[in-house]
Amino acid sequence: DFSKVDLERQKRTGYPEVIYGEGKTVDQIVAIMRALHTNHQNILATRILPEQAAGIQKALPNVTYHETARCMTEVATRQPETKSFIAVVTAGTTDIPVAEEAAVTAELYGNRVQKVYDVGVAGLQRLLMHIDTIRQAKVVIVVAGMEGALVSVVGGLVDVPVIAVPTSVGYGASFKGMTALMAMLNSCASGVTVVNIDNGFGAAYSASMINHLGGTDD
Amino acid sequence: DFSKVDLERQKRTGYPEVIYGEGKTVDQIVAIMRALHTNHQNILATRILPEQAAGIQKALPNVTYHETARCMTEVATRQPETKSFIAVVTAGTTDIPVAEEAAVTAELYGNRVQKVYDVGVAGLQRLLMHIDTIRQAKVVIVVAGMEGALVSVVGGLVDVPVIAVPTSVGYGASFKGMTALMAMLNSCASGVTVVNIDNGFGAAYSASMINHLGGTDD
Amino acid sequence: DFSKVDLERQKRTGYPEVIYGEGKTVDQIVAIMRALHTNHQNILATRILPEQAAGIQKALPNVTYHETARCMTEVATRQPETKSFIAVVTAGTTDIPVAEEAAVTAELYGNRVQKVYDVGVAGLQRLLMHIDTIRQAKVVIVVAGMEGALVSVVGGLVDVPVIAVPTSVGYGASFKGMTALMAMLNSCASGVTVVNIDNGFGAAYSASMINHLGGTDD
Amino acid sequence: DFSKVDLERQKRTGYPEVIYGEGKTVDQIVAIMRALHTNHQNILATRILPEQAAGIQKALPNVTYHETARCMTEVATRQPETKSFIAVVTAGTTDIPVAEEAAVTAELYGNRVQKVYDVGVAGLQRLLMHIDTIRQAKVVIVVAGMEGALVSVVGGLVDVPVIAVPTSVGYGASFKGMTALMAMLNSCASGVTVVNIDNGFGAAYSASMINHLGGTDD
Amino acid sequence: DFSKVDLERQKRTGYPEVIYGEGKTVDQIVAIMRALHTNHQNILATRILPEQAAGIQKALPNVTYHETARCMTEVATRQPETKSFIAVVTAGTTDIPVAEEAAVTAELYGNRVQKVYDVGVAGLQRLLMHIDTIRQAKVVIVVAGMEGALVSVVGGLVDVPVIAVPTSVGYGASFKGMTALMAMLNSCASGVTVVNIDNGFGAAYSASMINHLGGTDD
Amino acid sequence: DFSKVDLERQKRTGYPEVIYGEGKTVDQIVAIMRALHTNHQNILATRILPEQAAGIQKALPNVTYHETARCMTEVATRQPETKSFIAVVTAGTTDIPVAEEAAVTAELYGNRVQKVYDVGVAGLQRLLMHIDTIRQAKVVIVVAGMEGALVSVVGGLVDVPVIAVPTSVGYGASFKGMTALMAMLNSCASGVTVVNIDNGFGAAYSASMINHLGGTDD
Amino acid sequence: DFSKVDLERQKRTGYPEVIYGEGKTVDQIVAIMRALHTNHQNILATRILPEQAAGIQKALPNVTYHETARCMTEVATRQPETKSFIAVVTAGTTDIPVAEEAAVTAELYGNRVQKVYDVGVAGLQRLLMHIDTIRQAKVVIVVAGMEGALVSVVGGLVDVPVIAVPTSVGYGASFKGMTALMAMLNSCASGVTVVNIDNGFGAAYSASMINHLGGTDD
Amino acid sequence: DFSKVDLERQKRTGYPEVIYGEGKTVDQIVAIMRALHTNHQNILATRILPEQAAGIQKALPNVTYHETARCMTEVATRQPETKSFIAVVTAGTTDIPVAEEAAVTAELYGNRVQKVYDVGVAGLQRLLMHIDTIRQAKVVIVVAGMEGALVSVVGGLVDVPVIAVPTSVGYGASFKGMTALMAMLNSCASGVTVVNIDNGFGAAYSASMINHLGGTDD
Ligand SMILES: Nc1ncnc2c1ncn2[C@@H]1O[C@H](COP(=O)(O)O)[C@@H](O)[C@H]1O
Ligand SMILES: Nc1ncnc2c1ncn2[C@@H]1O[C@H](COP(=O)(O)O)[C@@H](O)[C@H]1O
Ligand SMILES: Nc1ncnc2c1ncn2[C@@H]1O[C@H](COP(=O)(O)O)[C@@H](O)[C@H]1O
Ligand SMILES: Nc1ncnc2c1ncn2[C@@H]1O[C@H](COP(=O)(O)O)[C@@H](O)[C@H]1O
Ligand SMILES: [Mg+2]
Ligand SMILES: [Mg+2]
Ligand SMILES: [Mg+2]
Ligand SMILES: [Mg+2]
Ligand SMILES: [Mg+2]
Ligand SMILES: [Mg+2]
Ligand SMILES: [Mg+2]
Ligand SMILES: [Mg+2]
Repeated sequence: DFSKVDLERQKRTGYPEVIYGEGKTVDQIVAIMRALHTNHQNILATRILPEQAAGIQKALPNVTYHETARCMTEVATRQPETKSFIAVVTAGTTDIPVAEEAAVTAELYGNRVQKVYDVGVAGLQRLLMHIDTIRQAKVVIVVAGMEGALVSVVGGLVDVPVIAVPTSVGYGASFKGMTALMAMLNSCASGVTVVNIDNGFGAAYSASMINHLGGTDD
Repeated sequence: DFSKVDLERQKRTGYPEVIYGEGKTVDQIVAIMRALHTNHQNILATRILPEQAAGIQKALPNVTYHETARCMTEVATRQPETKSFIAVVTAGTTDIPVAEEAAVTAELYGNRVQKVYDVGVAGLQRLLMHIDTIRQAKVVIVVAGMEGALVSVVGGLVDVPVIAVPTSVGYGASFKGMTALMAMLNSCASGVTVVNIDNGFGAAYSASMINHLGGTDD
Repeated sequence: DFSKVDLERQKRTGYPEVIYGEGKTVDQIVAIMRALHTNHQNILATRILPEQAAGIQKALPNVTYHETARCMTEVATRQPETKSFIAVVTAGTTDIPVAEEAAVTAELYGNRVQKVYDVGVAGLQRLLMHIDTIRQAKVVIVVAGMEGALVSVVGGLVDVPVIAVPTSVGYGASFKGMTALMAMLNSCASGVTVVNIDNGFGAAYSASMINHLGGTDD
Repeated sequence: DFSKVDLERQKRTGYPEVIYGEGKTVDQIVAIMRALHTNHQNILATRILPEQAAGIQKALPNVTYHETARCMTEVATRQPETKSFIAVVTAGTTDIPVAEEAAVTAELYGNRVQKVYDVGVAGLQRLLMHIDTIRQAKVVIVVAGMEGALVSVVGGLVDVPVIAVPTSVGYGASFKGMTALMAMLNSCASGVTVVNIDNGFGAAYSASMINHLGGTDD
Repeated sequence: DFSKVDLERQKRTGYPEVIYGEGKTVDQIVAIMRALHTNHQNILATRILPEQAAGIQKALPNVTYHETARCMTEVATRQPETKSFIAVVTAGTTDIPVAEEAAVTAELYGNRVQKVYDVGVAGLQRLLMHIDTIRQAKVVIVVAGMEGALVSVVGGLVDVPVIAVPTSVGYGASFKGMTALMAMLNSCASGVTVVNIDNGFGAAYSASMINHLGGTDD
Repeated sequence: DFSKVDLERQKRTGYPEVIYGEGKTVDQIVAIMRALHTNHQNILATRILPEQAAGIQKALPNVTYHETARCMTEVATRQPETKSFIAVVTAGTTDIPVAEEAAVTAELYGNRVQKVYDVGVAGLQRLLMHIDTIRQAKVVIVVAGMEGALVSVVGGLVDVPVIAVPTSVGYGASFKGMTALMAMLNSCASGVTVVNIDNGFGAAYSASMINHLGGTDD
Repeated sequence: DFSKVDLERQKRTGYPEVIYGEGKTVDQIVAIMRALHTNHQNILATRILPEQAAGIQKALPNVTYHETARCMTEVATRQPETKSFIAVVTAGTTDIPVAEEAAVTAELYGNRVQKVYDVGVAGLQRLLMHIDTIRQAKVVIVVAGMEGALVSVVGGLVDVPVIAVPTSVGYGASFKGMTALMAMLNSCASGVTVVNIDNGFGAAYSASMINHLGGTDD
Repeated sequence: DFSKVDLERQKRTGYPEVIYGEGKTVDQIVAIMRALHTNHQNILATRILPEQAAGIQKALPNVTYHETARCMTEVATRQPETKSFIAVVTAGTTDIPVAEEAAVTAELYGNRVQKVYDVGVAGLQRLLMHIDTIRQAKVVIVVAGMEGALVSVVGGLVDVPVIAVPTSVGYGASFKGMTALMAMLNSCASGVTVVNIDNGFGAAYSASMINHLGGTDD
């Protein structure tokens, strides 16, 4: 009664309801997962702590836990993988958990993913070494904390949509990601749109929609 | 010498450099437009006040001024129009200038555009009456000020990417668009990405990239 | 001596003083409860942690603890229940503790309450399925975090006062409820007033005043 | 085509659509007023500058301009006046325009209104002299800028709902009303709900709904 | 070497250096206390946690710990007590720790202190019952969290300086005292000055200076 | 009827009501001044623009306008001047209008005033040259914009109360005085209390109360 | 008497006092300039509007006005120009006025200056084309608005100190330069320090100190 | 694969990549340290907690942990120490950890360092006693929390570059260092540049660059 699982969502938007784990009890999450499982829908739960995961797996041992990504998944129907791919790029090492949330989401939704991690602009040659890979993507997710400058540099070098994910990495005047968020919204490069701080899931969701335009063979 | 026009941008990103008019003198804008014209690139200038426009047209009478959109354009090579279209949706009447900036940009870039204006959620039936049109779009731009709730409602009803544009419409705790911006970043609907306050141009730029995926025949 | 319990409040405003538990010691709370009990006034304490509750119940075993609502109550004089009711609506599952604080408060004050939980606008059909119930209420409390869009949608569909309660549910640019609060203050729907973040108690207090206008038979 | 007037709103919510004048052209406002007039609905337009008013009255001479309140009204069907009344209270003289916006709105909607102006708490005896009037109201609107303390004092002295309207009166750390808004949301008095800065209209709209509960004879 | 105790301060400003305990190790605090003790200066340390206090008293058993006030003191030379007094007033029970920090400081500096606690404006009669005491003070310290309205009410009723201390009591839009601070800076009552959030010490320091003007016999 | 002049205030607090000119019409100000004049109370109006002053003087030619201070005054009963004095100190030249508002207020209230202007800490010797004068004051008002460091330096050198007035002087990250305000609230010097940005009047009001303690002969 | 010109500053810090023009009258500025002129010190005044400049030049025709830079200068003793140079780099065309304030300041202080304007990272090749010039500088000033990403890219490519100047260029979430400021403080490149928004003067002042280390022959 | 160590950085900028420890696992840090060690580059890791340090030293016992500074270092090639020195100055005792981060960094980079701790402006004579030492430095780092006034006083007394480091020391309106940061950016003293809150490392990095200009013999 605490929850009305939106089982029509898959039909309406192409994707089933996703469980946001923060602030939910293990019992609540298990109940929602059961409803999805019974309806043969893919399960994706984000923001799941290791303790929660352990509790959930006691009830539902077939649900997989992705530790770095803090996500749980269960595949009801495996989707065909797209030929085109989503590039997931990070500025630093500490941005990786958010990037992995994006990667796990994108892969569950049937997207091929290429990861290019730790190529922040303070060492520009690292980015330039991988720019060709990035350029071949159908859509690029850029994950960065601190000042988020990587977004503008990538945005100026590619001709596909860039989705920017600010992270809460940093200290002091980084304001837990607010500075990166504001900087990305002001990017001097065009073709950049932005999601909430640490929202790897949301970036992957939009990227998956874009990557599937024109079918999975593209 | 005040400006190094980025004439390679078209090759690199698929779109020529765009002129941001605010804070530039008429002479500076005219000089940049001349450089683009000479290189046979389309001209788009945003945030052009009527006074600036008048001054520019004295020097360059072939450049068109779109008054509501506050933009100037000159077409060097007309692009074929896409079959698929971008829906531009506004919550209220006062959001229209930003929506028009998006529409002018999208059309210059060869996109078919459908406008659905003044369908804010306080009168939900207005939105529901037009939801079928919106659902047929390949990508949706939602323009809203105040609390920006229209984004979440539209986002929950479509299965294509939604680009949200907060506007500076409102007063008091609307903080010149900051509240709408923050609300949109927190949208409970998935598949929403966000651009800067009043940035109709940026939304259309990304939407055009997405709308062209799979070619103009789609 | 640390406290001057406002025993006249019931006469002056119709409702006895309420204990805000945060930052008070068990001894302080017990002392205030004793003063109210001795004066035959109803007891309501909010923001009581399980540890505090256990300590208080050692001294005062007749006081009930509502765990999800984090409230304690003791009924001195049971009030007649109103015929008209207050609807308490939430956007998500994690908004429920705040909604329960509102429900416990409203019921203690003699109001009939109808709960409609987890009907956020990302799945609009869930709300539309329950809109008739909501429309029959004399006053509606809407509890939502993140971007708070549910308030505007409900506000546009009913002809009774809506009291909006932003919650601290969310992350990143939700700013612990500030975004929802600001969004609700800017609601494009008329007839909406707002209380502090997570203030289920305050919403129920005002709703109870409204629900009792015209007597309990209405 | 810039506007879809919500002519069903009266049926749905009991009140016709209201025109927010800021940022609209005279032509747009006149067109919306015509649509309402043709449908025999009451007209209320807020935030109308004297220049706009003059332009509108050229086209529609029967629409009245309330200068201090910055509102325009036209009565299609005069509503019976309620017996119960709404008290509109201000802290200072400079809060009066916002209070008048509330009063004009409330009167148009058929409410009896009592005004108690300039009774800020720095001279408490002024408030105490008028507290009996205020106590007889069915609902109280308190309008205050600066630190907004009047709300808490009134809230502690009455047993009816209080709707607080922060105003942008003040300077420096008043942040154009933000300080009053935040203070009111934190009021130590119960039974207080809050609307946006300077939103006299919104306060009156909710107050009217409350004042009509139990019919106009109460 | 980590510290240069300002042993001249007593001569220069009339008061010895005071130890701010937060972020200092027990060893650092003991060393500074030893320097003051050796120089026959009064010791006052604020923001001392119980754990720190226990450690300090192992080395310096003669230093007293005031638990509610979170202060430690040692009197080198007892000052004559003033005839005039400082009133320390709080809005609620949870404001008491800050008020006690003020009281301990004021008493160490030789001031007579009168405490009037829990007289917030939601129950105005509680304040009015004690207003005569407050009016006889030479200076008044008002300690309040949430919206801080007590400051303006007291400020309008007395003819002596009022020093306002905002506290971090509250939740949501109280912003850990920021709302109370801003409200107090905007007080509509004249004669109010303000110190930092939770700064009971600073308020008492200034109050002591004022209370000693005209000598201790006044 | 727009105003209830608080004619009892002089008896209650020792000082008559003061007119805050911003946002009031000339007619409103004249009416309030007439009420005060008729009651033989001193007139002080702050924040009066030259245009307002001209209009007021047409009706009331005996009221003096202090242009730099933006104040108007009329003396009903000249008060005896205190022997002790208030020092008014500024950091820069552009802080002078606020300092003059303080000086005009203080002098009207019968205080001797000493002005020490433009002694900001970037040229510390300027302050040290005048420190003896400042030290002889009974209370010191320090007026500063930008980072407000002068307050801490003065506060560390005197043994009397310091009232800090942040000004809106500066640009960029000075946030119209907010930075100076916050810095002053965090002053490492004790004995400092703070008033609102640009509030020279409020500082002088409190300073006058303090300066009169112990009578005017002190 | 409004001003105590700090004529010792040149001896103490190596540079004479500089006049900050905003908020000063023409008479005040002329008086300060006269004092400096009489003492044979170089004159630099910043933030001088064209109207102010015209008024000043009536009194002091030998003072030069730099229009784009909004500065006035008069050279008392021409300093030898350094061999090493300061690079002044801007991201866009609209950042030039701030860059010119830096250049005028640096040149008055005897520094060789190289300007590299409009090389923002959205067109990275423009920066790479000029990077050799920038690398030869002894210190680099980077001037950028919007998201300020240029700072991190330049900072990662040079081995000399970078001084970052955020500008108020941008709109919406650029917050008049606050976003650029915060981004620059969080730069992932080391060796970056930051000055206030639009503070070209301050950047040049520090750069001049650095550029002169080791003498003017370096 | 989580990390692309920027081994070219030493050649490009003169300094090897530095490890920011926060949010990294022990394994990640050890792997990066190994890469640097293998390439004969100096190791510097900042923000290392004692627990992390213990884990790292198990794998790499030759890496030194500086506890107060929360840094780890390993010297590959010892650099010659400069003759000129960097002064590191703090306002209080609690600012020392940040100062030590600066000192450890500066010394690793071959700079002579002089520490002047606890000389805040509330006891100005402490600073004046050490001003000669500070004046002989080639560059000064000032570390201060609360209101950061020490920066302006030092900045007005020296003729070399000052790098200001705000610290998160303070409470209430210190906003974890934001007030100090803003105050320092607004310093009325020229020649001051600023780094992020608590960024001792960044200040030392820039200071080292400056201190090495003109060679190590200067
Ligand atoms: N990490 C995430 N960030 C943002 N939204 C999410 C995330 N995970 C799930 N969601 C959304 O949150 C909704 C569930 O909310 P609730 O009803 O509270 O469980 C889902 O339908 C998703 O659209
Ligand atoms: N309305 C706009 N909002 C955001 N960015 C814009 C806008 N118009 C143009 N731009 C971008 O600003 C860049 C030009 O900056 P500038 O060198 O200052 O003229 C263009 O390349 C566009 O990418
Ligand atoms: N410059 C000022 N700053 C703050 N408060 C002021 C100022 N001038 C007058 N006041 C106060 O504002 C009150 C008048 O407010 P009002 O009723 O709006 O005229 C007076 O009683 C004063 O206490
Ligand atoms: N554009 C500027 N930005 C920051 N500080 C400045 C600027 N121009 C001048 N100054 C400083 O402001 C001081 C003068 O302030 P004032 O006494 O108000 O004239 C000078 O000594 C300079 O150090
Ligand atoms: Mg890295
Ligand atoms: Mg509309
Ligand atoms: Mg749900
Ligand atoms: Mg008044
Ligand atoms: Mg209480
Ligand atoms: Mg000066
Ligand atoms: Mg450009
Ligand atoms: Mg100290």
